[in-house]
This record gives sequence, C-alpha cells and structure tokens, in this order.
Amino acid sequence: MNTYRVAQVPAPNGSFEIVEREVPRPGPRHVRIAVEACGVCRSDAMFVSAGMPGVPFPLVPGHEAAGRVEELGDGADEMGWQVGDRVTVGWFGGSCLHCVPCRRGDFIVCDNLKIPGYAYDGGFAEAIVAPVDALARIPDALAATDAGPMACAGVTVYNGLRRSSARPDDLVAIQGIGGLGHLAVRFAAAMGYETVAIARGADKADFAKELGAHHYVDSTAGPVAEALQTLGGAKVVLATAGNSEAMAATVDGLAPRGELVVVGATPDPMPVSPLQLILKGRLVRGHPSGTAQDVRDTMTFAARHGIRPMTEVLPLDEANTAYRKMMDGSARFRMVLTPS
Amino acid sequence: MNTYRVAQVPAPNGSFEIVEREVPRPGPRHVRIAVEACGVCRSDAMFVSAGMPGVPFPLVPGHEAAGRVEELGDGADEMGWQVGDRVTVGWFGGSCLHCVPCRRGDFIVCDNLKIPGYAYDGGFAEAIVAPVDALARIPDALAATDAGPMACAGVTVYNGLRRSSARPDDLVAIQGIGGLGHLAVRFAAAMGYETVAIARGADKADFAKELGAHHYVDSTAGPVAEALQTLGGAKVVLATAGNSEAMAATVDGLAPRGELVVVGATPDPMPVSPLQLILKGRLVRGHPSGTAQDVRDTMTFAARHGIRPMTEVLPLDEANTAYRKMMDGSARFRMVLTPS
Amino acid sequence: MNTYRVAQVPAPNGSFEIVEREVPRPGPRHVRIAVEACGVCRSDAMFVSAGMPGVPFPLVPGHEAAGRVEELGDGADEMGWQVGDRVTVGWFGGSCLHCVPCRRGDFIVCDNLKIPGYAYDGGFAEAIVAPVDALARIPDALAATDAGPMACAGVTVYNGLRRSSARPDDLVAIQGIGGLGHLAVRFAAAMGYETVAIARGADKADFAKELGAHHYVDSTAGPVAEALQTLGGAKVVLATAGNSEAMAATVDGLAPRGELVVVGATPDPMPVSPLQLILKGRLVRGHPSGTAQDVRDTMTFAARHGIRPMTEVLPLDEANTAYRKMMDGSARFRMVLTPS
Amino acid sequence: MNTYRVAQVPAPNGSFEIVEREVPRPGPRHVRIAVEACGVCRSDAMFVSAGMPGVPFPLVPGHEAAGRVEELGDGADEMGWQVGDRVTVGWFGGSCLHCVPCRRGDFIVCDNLKIPGYAYDGGFAEAIVAPVDALARIPDALAATDAGPMACAGVTVYNGLRRSSARPDDLVAIQGIGGLGHLAVRFAAAMGYETVAIARGADKADFAKELGAHHYVDSTAGPVAEALQTLGGAKVVLATAGNSEAMAATVDGLAPRGELVVVGATPDPMPVSPLQLILKGRLVRGHPSGTAQDVRDTMTFAARHGIRPMTEVLPLDEANTAYRKMMDGSARFRMVLTPS
Repeated sequence: MNTYRVAQVPAPNGSFEIVEREVPRPGPRHVRIAVEACGVCRSDAMFVSAGMPGVPFPLVPGHEAAGRVEELGDGADEMGWQVGDRVTVGWFGGSCLHCVPCRRGDFIVCDNLKIPGYAYDGGFAEAIVAPVDALARIPDALAATDAGPMACAGVTVYNGLRRSSARPDDLVAIQGIGGLGHLAVRFAAAMGYETVAIARGADKADFAKELGAHHYVDSTAGPVAEALQTLGGAKVVLATAGNSEAMAATVDGLAPRGELVVVGATPDPMPVSPLQLILKGRLVRGHPSGTAQDVRDTMTFAARHGIRPMTEVLPLDEANTAYRKMMDGSARFRMVLTPS
Repeated sequence: MNTYRVAQVPAPNGSFEIVEREVPRPGPRHVRIAVEACGVCRSDAMFVSAGMPGVPFPLVPGHEAAGRVEELGDGADEMGWQVGDRVTVGWFGGSCLHCVPCRRGDFIVCDNLKIPGYAYDGGFAEAIVAPVDALARIPDALAATDAGPMACAGVTVYNGLRRSSARPDDLVAIQGIGGLGHLAVRFAAAMGYETVAIARGADKADFAKELGAHHYVDSTAGPVAEALQTLGGAKVVLATAGNSEAMAATVDGLAPRGELVVVGATPDPMPVSPLQLILKGRLVRGHPSGTAQDVRDTMTFAARHGIRPMTEVLPLDEANTAYRKMMDGSARFRMVLTPS
Repeated sequence: MNTYRVAQVPAPNGSFEIVEREVPRPGPRHVRIAVEACGVCRSDAMFVSAGMPGVPFPLVPGHEAAGRVEELGDGADEMGWQVGDRVTVGWFGGSCLHCVPCRRGDFIVCDNLKIPGYAYDGGFAEAIVAPVDALARIPDALAATDAGPMACAGVTVYNGLRRSSARPDDLVAIQGIGGLGHLAVRFAAAMGYETVAIARGADKADFAKELGAHHYVDSTAGPVAEALQTLGGAKVVLATAGNSEAMAATVDGLAPRGELVVVGATPDPMPVSPLQLILKGRLVRGHPSGTAQDVRDTMTFAARHGIRPMTEVLPLDEANTAYRKMMDGSARFRMVLTPS
Repeated sequence: MNTYRVAQVPAPNGSFEIVEREVPRPGPRHVRIAVEACGVCRSDAMFVSAGMPGVPFPLVPGHEAAGRVEELGDGADEMGWQVGDRVTVGWFGGSCLHCVPCRRGDFIVCDNLKIPGYAYDGGFAEAIVAPVDALARIPDALAATDAGPMACAGVTVYNGLRRSSARPDDLVAIQGIGGLGHLAVRFAAAMGYETVAIARGADKADFAKELGAHHYVDSTAGPVAEALQTLGGAKVVLATAGNSEAMAATVDGLAPRGELVVVGATPDPMPVSPLQLILKGRLVRGHPSGTAQDVRDTMTFAARHGIRPMTEVLPLDEANTAYRKMMDGSARFRMVLTPS
C-alpha cells in the first residue's frame, strides 16, 4: 500500500471529504499506526471551526485513535515499541519536553502541547503518525472501538475523579450523563464513591441508576444545589457539560472543602462569587485531560471493572454523519469511525 | 469593678455609643478577658449593617481582641488556661464540635461557627467572654495592639499562604497591600517566596519593596495577567481586596497548576471561564481565615520574623472615627481600639 | 435496673470474672450506652497484661462496643444525641480538645487519647459510659455485632487505605488476612484498587479471592518483594500483622513512591535501610486507627458495599474463651461478646 | 583543541590519574560542556569502589559539574540550548523517558536513571557530554564553583525540605551539618522554618547559629529525641548523615504526623518500630535528590537568598587529595575541582 484514505475538512467549517494521500513515514521517535477506530469528540469542533490560532487546512481531525503500530521511526524500538503493538493516540499527542511544565514532568500542561488533528494529522484516517510519548498500550480486553474514546473522553473524567480530593466514602456528583458523563458515573461507582448523576429530565433517572449512580438529580425539577445539600453536600462535582451557568449552580451544593472540577471547556464566565467559596473553603478547579500514561491507567481500570463507552460506530465514509450527530447531541453516546 | 464599658451600635447602621454594662461571668469552658486592644475589621460591617441573618442589637462588634484572662469558668483550667494568660479572640470565636466538619477537625468551616461581635458580644469593650477553644496565646514579643489584628487579618493571609500549593521558589503575588495585603507581603517574603505585590498606582512601589516584595505590579498601568506572565506566571495569587473583577483579571497570569486564593469576601461573581482554568489546570480557592491554633501559629511566626501589623491606635471612645476610617479606606493600615 | 454486669480482669494477666456493679451515671457531655455487642481486639492484651503505664485494675476491657444510648449527661442533647440512638464506642474513646494536635483537629493523635478499657471502663459489659465525641452513629443496615468490630479493626484498615497515596488503578497489597486483613481486602477491592492479599500458605488463596483479591501471594513460597514486583510493584502495602520482619520484607516490593502503611503495632524494629527508601522515594508510615467520625465513614461505606466482618459471637459469660481464641489466633476472624 | 584532560580511576579503588582523551562529539539531544568546576561527592565512592553493578573502568567520576555549553548535538537547539549557556550536570544525568515513572513525569525515580560518572563519563574532566534533560541553567549570580555542588548536595536537601510536609511555622531539624547539612540549615532558615541543627559536639553550636539555626542540639550530650521534644517535637527531621542508628534515634523526637526524611544513603537497617510510628502517625521517607529542573529551582532560590556552599577548591590535578578529604571527612565542606 502506498496510499491511504483520510477524512479531511478542506476549509473552516467545511464538510468532510475522503481523499487518498501518500502514506507518511514516521520520523525519529515516531511510529505509524494503522487506525482501527477513532472517536469523534466535541473538541474537534474547535479545530474544524478554526477556533484556535493556526489550524491548518485541509484538516484531518481525530484525537481518539486506536490501532496497531505498523512502522517504527528511528529510536522507537528503544523506547519500548514494536510493530503490532495495539495503542491509542488521544488528546495528549505528545509534549515538547523542554518547557518548564514538561521539565517538571507535568506534560499535559505543556506550553507546546501537540493535539492530534491540530498539531499533526489526526485519526480520521486509515493511518496516523504520532510520537512515541503519545502512545498508550491497549489492554487485550478492550476492542479498538472501546479504546479510542478512552483516550480523550475516558481519561478526562477518570483522571478528573482520581486526582480530585474525593475519597471512597464521599459524595461525588457527575453533572451531565452524555459522552463524558456516562463514563464518569461508571468510573465513580467503581471507585467506591457515593455517586450522584445530575441531568435534565426525570426520564434519565433509570439510565443513571443502571450506570451505577446511587442518586439522581433532575436539574429541571428545582435548584441543583439544594438537592445536593439534601444528600449531605458533594465533596466533588465533576462538570462534564460545557455550560457555565449550570456549573456555577452546583457550587452551593458543595460540602465544606468541596470542589467543582470542570472538564467541559467553554469561554463563558461562571458566575461564582468569593463569598460562595470562602466561608466553606470551596474551590473550582480546571482539569486538563491526561497524558498517555493516564490513558493507559484509565484503560487498565476500565478493563478490570468491565467499563466500556457506549458507542455508535460508523465507517470513515460517514464522517459527516458522525460529526453532525456528535455536534447536535443526538449521539448515544460517543461516535466512533472505523476505516472499513 | 461591677460594670465595664462597651462600644455598641444600638440599631442597624447606627453610630457607636459607649455604655456601661454589668460585668458578665464566664460559663463552663469559657473565660472573661480584660481587653487591651481590639482591631477594627471590614467584616464588622456585615454585622453593623445587619447584613447577616439574626444580628442582635444593640451590637458590640469586634473580632480582633487581645487581652488578659481575668476570670475562668468551670473547666477552663483543665483546658490549660489560667488567670493572667495573654490571649486573643479572633474571627474564629469557637465552634460547635458536633457538626460533621467539627467532628472531622476542620473547625473553621463549622456549620455553627461562632463569630465574636455576632454570635456573642465582641471586643469593642473593656472585657469579652469567650469559649476556650477561641483563645490563642500571645507570644511575649507581641504587644496587644499587634496581636489583635493577627487574630483575623493576620491569620487569614498567613494561613492562606501556608495552606496554598506554593513552595519556596515559587512566584507568589499578593493582590492589594492594604489591611490584609501589607501583612501578606511580609509573610510571603519571610516564607521564602519570590513575592510580587499588586496594587493601584506607581507610587506604592517603594512601599511594597520596603515590605519585602521583589516585584511590584501597578494594576493601573496595563493588564495584570500580562505583567505576571512576564515574571514567569504566578503559582499563587492571594487576592486580599474584595473586588471580583480585579481577582478574575489575575487568572490568566497564573502559571500552569497555579491557584487564585480569594480571601476578600464579596458576593459579586468573578468572571472566570472554564477554558481559563482547564487548559493549564488552574484553580480558584476560597480561603476561610483560621482557627485559634492557626492564630497561635501566625503569631509565633510573626514573632520569630519580626513581623507586625501597621496600625493606628485610638481609644474606645473614638470607635466611630476608627470604624469610619476603616470603611472609607483611609486607615494606615489597621485601626485598633484600646479601652483606655 | 440498678446494677449491671461486667467482665473484669482483677489483676494483670488474670482471667475474666463476671461481677455486678452499680449502674454509672453519665457526666456532662457523656452518655450511657446499653451494650449489645463488643469485639475483642488484640490490643486489649496491652491493657490486660498491664503493658501500658497506669492500667487500672480490676479492668473492664473492650474498645469495639456497639449498643443504644440509654441515658444522656448534661449537654449531650445539644451535641446532637438522643436516648435510643444506635452508636459505637471504639479505640477512639474521646480526646482532650486542648493539646496541640486536638487544637489542630487531629484528634486521633491526641496527647491524652482516651482509650476505652484503659482510660475508662470498656465494653465487656452490659453498659458503658463514654464522652459524646467517642460516638459514631450506626447505619440501619449494620447489626450491633457487625458494627462493634468496625469501631477498631474496621476503621483502622479503612482509614489506612483511604488516607494512603493509593488511587483506584494502583496495586494495593494487604499483608495478613486475619482479623484486620480480611476486612482490608474487602475494602480495597470496593475502592477499586487492584488488590493483592499476602498470607502464609497456599491454602488461603481461594479465601482471598472470595474476599475480592485479584492476586494472592503465599509468603512461604518465596520472597514477597519479588512476587510484588512481578505484579508491577505495590503502591501501598497495608501491613496488618504485627510482625516487623515480615513488614520489612515487603519494602523492596514497593513501586517508586510506594508506601508501607503499618497498622499492626509491635515494638520490634523493622529492618529497613535508607538505601531501600531513597532511590525509589519510598516511605514507611504508621497509621493510627481513626476518630469516631472515621468510624462513621467506615460503617457508611461498609453498609453501601455490603461489607461485614466475619465474626464468632459468644456471650459475655464466655469472655475467657473469646479472649483466648483471639490471642491464640484461632478466631475466625473477630471474636464478639454479647451481654445476653 | 582535539584532546582534553580527565581525571580517571583505572580500576576499582584505584587512584586518580590524569590522561588526555579525544574530545567527544555530542549525539542527538546531547551537548558538550566545557567544565569549569565539579564537586566531589561521597556518592562517587559507590562507583570508584565498584559498589554498583556494571561500573565501567577506567572511570571518570563527577556528578556536580558546572560549565559552558560548547557544542550542540542534533536537536539540542530545538530543546532551547545554545553554545555559551552556563549549565550544571548533577546526580540526575538524564532519564529514559519510557519507563512508567518517566511516563508519569517522575524522572528522578526512573528505572534507568543515568548518573554521570557511572552511566557516562562524569565531570572530573575538562569537558563532559550530557543529554539535554540533564541540564540546569545557572543564574548569573552563581559562580561555577558554587553551582556545581548545588546540582547534587544542594538539590538533595533543598528538594527534601520543600517536598516535605513542613510549613513555615514548623520545627525542622537538620541532622548533620557537613557537606549537605550546612546547606540544609541555610535553606531551612530561608524557608521560614524554626530550624534546629543536630551535630556532634558543643563546639559546633556557634557555627550552626551562624548558618541560621535557631536551636542547636549536641547529639553527644544526651538523647536527641528528648531534646527535640523539649523544643515541641520536630515536624521534619532531614537526616543528611548516612548513619542509620543516628537517624532512628530522632524518631521519638518527631511531633505527631512528623516525618523523618532520609537522604544519607546507607544499606544499614534503621531500628525503627511500628509502635514508634503508629501511635503518633509518624513516617520515614526516603528522598531521592532531584531532577535538572529541581536543580534550577534550587539555584534560583539560592541566588535570591544569597546562599552558597562552603567549598575548598582544588585543581583537577589534585583529584586524589580532594577525593581523600571528602572521604575522610576533613573537607570544609564540599571539595570542588577546577580544570585549570
């Protein structure tokens, strides 16, 4: 094979088109991966819409890729990788290793973070070339279509929970039970937390319970903060939906020393006051996804606890449909593309 | 002596009047203290203005009291106190010991926190009766007029700094160099931080340097966040002035994993977005002053490092003047009342 | 009823005898509890043998009591307690509230910690009088015979795990699966850890798996440290058996930054060298049980996850048998006394 | 220049000899540094004595090198380095970036840590070739002879202190005031701690006070633990001398939740018992030096606070003398070699 197929967007906000490209060769400390599945993420829209500086077009999005290593660049073997390895490439597509955060080992806040589908061609393709530090080994128990979404949606919420101040007997609320939230509820329950799901409408209660939630709060039925206080106050609220007003509405539902962990990125200000935070020692924390090792940890945990994303799988040819369903909220719950 | 003098406010937003009252007797696990000095704090206004539920009138404010124990209630000696002990009674005027935060040992976020000058008669008086858990022993090196302000202003900023994530080589910014901020700059420098003072106007630069700041940022000269980034980004911003817009303006000046610690209480929302927090893993934390033991720690540190509040001392009779100067911002920097 | 029965030891290392005593009245902030069950703990031997200074004889041991409040001392109602409340009194039998650790809220390391069956008459009796800060409310789902052992054995391991540095995907090893260890394995599994049980003999493997362990290490089959390294290295080893040599033998099985948490108290030195700790940044931590609130948290978690101690229940009259079985290791796994 | 001089040890435990070698060229992501100074460290002896597996002979020791970058390997410029940069190469001589600790960003506990003078030729030479991740930029204020010792001795104690649980008002004891300890006392004082120096003999008291210690404990005058408890109990003891008995003797001098941080590596077991650790919640932590970024932080702090190592500087030709003085304890306090 000398060429491979990609789904690319020719210009800002354009539609996906399938084109053939010459197969790229991996450079030093890089590998080429035969993509078996790639999740579609709401963050892809930041790039498709040219919402970030310097987005290159035509653009191949995709930062939830899973597949098999098929060619090694120089030095990749010394870094522990072999042809045939099953790996993911997620939001964390590699870091610069020389900025201060990298030198402190905090790669995910790298000043020059490489996000696939922005810094380099992403996973909406039959192949992707990525640096070795972006790779996470997939446990045997996970299919590629399950592993892909773990590399962004999964790690974001898994990491957000395990790095929070919550301990096993604490009350942990997951705001939103969509693409990120449905995984977060499952992770939280498996971590031993008393788990609350918060979503819009009474009809989602049963689904939330099936995911493992001990409690359900219908955000349309009254103030969310009061509902949380009735349950004793949340030690952690993990806000997965990018709605600043809704996030802020949970703050008064936090217990003393409770924290609102925000993972749903949006530029709208959250109306939270100093007074709400000071008297009870509360905090609002932004949580930035996770590194390749974090993805590995997430998949290890998921494999051991039988946790899988709920996905709708479509062929690469239907990238436009997959992208639309993700954007209009009709996905149940993660859209995944497969090359064939 | 059968009576003692207090400065009381007869009704919401009224002026102070000096009245004689019968000397109160301390109940079980309480002591009566002959007040030698009591600081005036901006938070007193929350009570004087009846801005909190259930403020009793006539009201004797004052939660920065320092003096000598002159009578012990039952059991106070078993708790380690004696007549003659030099002590403070600060914002932390005792806790209930039976709510969940108290049972976890986190007294300052007690569900039933007793604030002097609200929960019971405060320190604008010749004497105050307080529970023993509200007492902090004053080091010999500190005068009563120095100790009083340490029991609220001092402990708030000292505790806010030592409980933050800052470590000695980190860049720590103090926003505001007024009643709280001038102490915070001195504490931060003595803790070994690279210290930045942020205030309004170029004319305060010299004063900031005298306090120990390594850098000065004039907030009227350009975006504060940019100035902080020029210095490398702040690990911690301690926001002492209750201005939500100004607080939020520092967020983009935080380093990765940096935190904005807010101690200046105000109900106005801070315009901070999820996006500002997520990508760099930043956080906004509310910091709630400190317990009597924290006050003790603050004074111990202040004594060892020669740190004193800058104060204007007036007799109790001039409570109206002192209160007015504190409220209109003309105090340099803490107003303190002495009974005689 | 004017009298009640206790099982007392008349002199150091004596046998238990049942005697009638006059019913005690609870003092201020104390309650009297009708004991329904009391666990027998290996630590009781420290007092029965007069192994601590100032043990009073005749001695009524017992720091795993569970029962119902039957009389309130002054002020107990204001602290939130009522006649009929189901409560435990465990190793944490109250603290002084005036030493520095207490004033910092770290009650369990109180300089004057009150241990029932040492500081005051314990739970091998039909009734016990205890201070209100020693009480933990029992969830409805737990029987008294299950709640008692949670107040010392349970909280010790639960707290030791949740306060460790382990996070959900980490490898956590429980050394010993006896009275403490069998609970620890169940807690660790419910907290989401990859759980290893370490014990003597291949025959315990099945039992360990039934408790929820993912792996079993037979300590008689080869070096424990090597076995742990084969599994990737433990983030935490919780050492429940008081055997210093066996504890030290796990250190080389710790992952980088791993910690050995010791809860099995013994005065024998652990042969651990600086070199073993330095290169991998390991640590050895002593963990001191937990407060009444920690007991409450432990029982809440146990109730939610269906975790119960395995117990042998005997009547108070058979205190000698129960004590002997606990001491000679033949208990399966906690001995519990009931008054009738 | 085609050749350069090194001080090498031809065989285990041999003497140093000066030889000429061909100048090495830096490989990818490596630089060659013209060495201006290199400290002599007690750890060098582990390699000179062939005390570690696979030590290569002839051996060029030295992991406290400071100098100027004189040639860049491929990619070094993209990593931010230029010819002329003043840099150190310390104990942390680079990490593998692919083991689990590296992928978690915890480079100093890398499974394949590269220690200069062991993994590759060290700094007892006119030049050293090192990977870029080993480099720390030297602040202008520090001379090369001061910077070298900061890259191992300095960072070890600085990092050990700032990563400990000590906060500014805590009592921190430095055990030993030799090559590491004299720096530790200065750092501790500048971090605001109440600082205790522990050493052998009354005659060192004045020197300890000059370094900034608030208290001095003569370990030959009585039990060290008692002396520490008289001062209130230490939150942290930093043990810089590799004497396991002496380390263990401080444990009973720790406050509740206190920690013994060991940096003096020795294979002798420390006689510490579970009982000593459990009741007060104490811990013993091994601390493994620090990365190049930690060295940078150390030097930044040292520059700001005017902290310098006390050194004896000898020319490279006198490597045998310098090594002997370091080994027999007569160095005052760090031996440093300069190439000319």
